[in-house]
Amino acid sequence: MTAEIISVGTELLLGNILNTNAQYLSRELAALGITVQRESTIGDNHDRLADFVNEAKQRCDLLVFTGGLGPTADDLTKETVAGCYGDMLAFDPEEWQKIVNFFTRTGRKTTPNNRKQAMVPAHGHKIINNHGTAPGAWFEQDGHCAVLMPGVPHEMKAMWEESVRPLLLARQNCTLHSITLRVLGGESDIEYRVRHLLENANPTAAIYCKTGECEIRITARAENDSSAEKMCRAYATKFYDLLGDAVYDEDVTGLEETLVHTLKEKGLTIATAESCTGGMIAQRLTNVSGASEVFGFGFVTYWEQAKAKMVGVEPAVIAKYNVVSAPVAAQMALGAAEAAGADIAVSVTGLAGPNGGDAVRPVGTVYLGAACGETVYVKKLFVSRPDRALVRARAAQMALELALRLAQGKVPADTQALAKSDRHDAAALTALDSTFLKG
Amino acid sequence: MTAEIISVGTELLLGNILNTNAQYLSRELAALGITVQRESTIGDNHDRLADFVNEAKQRCDLLVFTGGLGPTADDLTKETVAGCYGDMLAFDPEEWQKIVNFFTRTGRKTTPNNRKQAMVPAHGHKIINNHGTAPGAWFEQDGHCAVLMPGVPHEMKAMWEESVRPLLLARQNCTLHSITLRVLGGESDIEYRVRHLLENANPTAAIYCKTGECEIRITARAENDSSAEKMCRAYATKFYDLLGDAVYDEDVTGLEETLVHTLKEKGLTIATAESCTGGMIAQRLTNVSGASEVFGFGFVTYWEQAKAKMVGVEPAVIAKYNVVSAPVAAQMALGAAEAAGADIAVSVTGLAGPNGGDAVRPVGTVYLGAACGETVYVKKLFVSRPDRALVRARAAQMALELALRLAQGKVPADTQALAKSDRHDAAALTALDSTFLKG
Repeated sequence: MTAEIISVGTELLLGNILNTNAQYLSRELAALGITVQRESTIGDNHDRLADFVNEAKQRCDLLVFTGGLGPTADDLTKETVAGCYGDMLAFDPEEWQKIVNFFTRTGRKTTPNNRKQAMVPAHGHKIINNHGTAPGAWFEQDGHCAVLMPGVPHEMKAMWEESVRPLLLARQNCTLHSITLRVLGGESDIEYRVRHLLENANPTAAIYCKTGECEIRITARAENDSSAEKMCRAYATKFYDLLGDAVYDEDVTGLEETLVHTLKEKGLTIATAESCTGGMIAQRLTNVSGASEVFGFGFVTYWEQAKAKMVGVEPAVIAKYNVVSAPVAAQMALGAAEAAGADIAVSVTGLAGPNGGDAVRPVGTVYLGAACGETVYVKKLFVSRPDRALVRARAAQMALELALRLAQGKVPADTQALAKSDRHDAAALTALDSTFLKG
Repeated sequence: MTAEIISVGTELLLGNILNTNAQYLSRELAALGITVQRESTIGDNHDRLADFVNEAKQRCDLLVFTGGLGPTADDLTKETVAGCYGDMLAFDPEEWQKIVNFFTRTGRKTTPNNRKQAMVPAHGHKIINNHGTAPGAWFEQDGHCAVLMPGVPHEMKAMWEESVRPLLLARQNCTLHSITLRVLGGESDIEYRVRHLLENANPTAAIYCKTGECEIRITARAENDSSAEKMCRAYATKFYDLLGDAVYDEDVTGLEETLVHTLKEKGLTIATAESCTGGMIAQRLTNVSGASEVFGFGFVTYWEQAKAKMVGVEPAVIAKYNVVSAPVAAQMALGAAEAAGADIAVSVTGLAGPNGGDAVRPVGTVYLGAACGETVYVKKLFVSRPDRALVRARAAQMALELALRLAQGKVPADTQALAKSDRHDAAALTALDSTFLKG
């Protein structure tokens, strides 16, 4: 089955809105095994849209429209597409009543315009919108289909999930199951290691890259749920075999969610001491609903005085080793754990740029600490592209990774350990410092 | 002049990448007075692309392509478009040398594939890429033009700004000037107030909405820079007249940038005490390069103990008024200013949800404090859509706004004041609390 996605709206052509609908639908259609051959954005213009639809209809089996279902004169997707599919629109009293109820509930009055939204296909059928006033529509002619959904992203997604996807699955007589693996590491490395698994018809697997991690979405189509799930699971195993514990979780929104859940499971708490990330780690942790069960104290220690006062870093240690150094990261993490009474604490001190830095510590140099029990683990990160936002995002991501490994009871990779009892010991701190300066 | 934007790449049709290039180019072309009639995404397929180009060429004056300029067999935009415009490609030794140098510098070897990237139009002309290995291309036939740029967003934007936009301006014999106003407030309200200014041919004005604020971009075309600038400024004045000090700045990346600059100018410092925003305000402040001149201490006080220990909130005050209350917000801000030795401090305590809340304090209820000198100002925010991310983002935005008004020496709007000397006074705290509970 082949499809095209068509976004209707002059505001898109003016660049007023970023078109996220097209990406969402591309992924969803790919998961259904439907090949998307073209995506187009067309303005609110009857003739141009009609010309387009008449051509596109010949090129593929299914046209997926978003936008242009509103009440104004500009909104003309429904009537235009109806015409192209030999259909007409008819007034639907049930939809009209829903619109009237909605306006009454929100203390407003309908205008004659609003009746437009209650027009539905005479031969095709309407698609219920449970999250707005504009119903969707389905048209069909000689085996060619068109589905119309609203342009507002949350309405479109809900209609897709509640009605359109089930309809397409039913027509294909199959069901769908997906697993999304979350994988730590760089894009090109991960993609290279699993590349032969990404070219598969069923299950499909697609990789989406983010800062410091990738998402691998596996989707299987089968006759029933349990077969689809089994196929998905079997295919996921191939990724686990190749990637090991770089796969940190499934079906979560990010590393912070896995970390919060792991801490909760283990009955552990966490604290943060952030310099160059400036609150980004705490912010990510508290994005997770229920974070308050594991996180209580976050220290944003942007100044040296703050590092001393809030988390007990010795000014002499800063003076001797530099504020961006392994000994300072170690003392920050230990001090944060102590000040917060937390089981685990992570710290970040670095140069996000664009200004500052020298030959020993160029912009992009970051030291991270992760304290747990009697030990603190220190890691160095260097981001070669001098992009402030990227340095901060990479550092926050790595801090969450260090914390996750500690929460899992593992020693984090590529770190140097310092005993808590040595945290004021000059020889131990110098040894720690020099390990990183050599590297 | 009319144009179409064409993004080439099968990865876009699979939804692996969000197409941000199309929005960027839409805005830029609109600013040049060029009407974008259609945007399309086509896969890496020679015949489909050629068919498309032959049709699109007839529909408009200019085709703007991104993507498909890489070295692999999939990358076929250049040869396909050349064919459609009656042009050919020729090997360019200068481009080849640049590619060889780039590979040598990054410690790699070129492959025969890479020679593809050194092919440039024989009759049209190449466009220099200062940020990557793929040159762009310009083709022209019978007054119809096509411009080809790389798909990597930062390379595409740089090529647009450095070469393509100047070329289009030169052809139109004009120059361009833009001002971007930053305006505090909700989308529909701002748009309603300025709607008659948004339908103008030159200068153009477009509105882009974000959380708690909008961006209004004014662009003038004229024969020379100074005329364009004058026209822009005159048109901007109309917006200032309508919107007053809701316009908080021009040409900045966000409220945090204006706040950091204002604090720096006035020689003031700021501290933060965050509960439901969990570090988001500190994170936004430290996004700004040079934030360390004005911000040193951030307190993420997620637990009640943290509010007591880090910023001196009285446990009895929490017990009496609730942790989400005006008295707690007031004590947090005053305590943060004191603990940090800062001139200004902002605080946030609220219910971001999705769980928790009751009839008095439903999810979405947030109290903010802003301390300066001998006074703390308290404000209440209620976000009716129970969306955790939205509640947090709106709260952080409002906290930055309160801080900006204090830095400007103004009393922030819709706030209740409490004297610092009254911060432990039961009657004063109860009076403050009840003001908000009544509203």
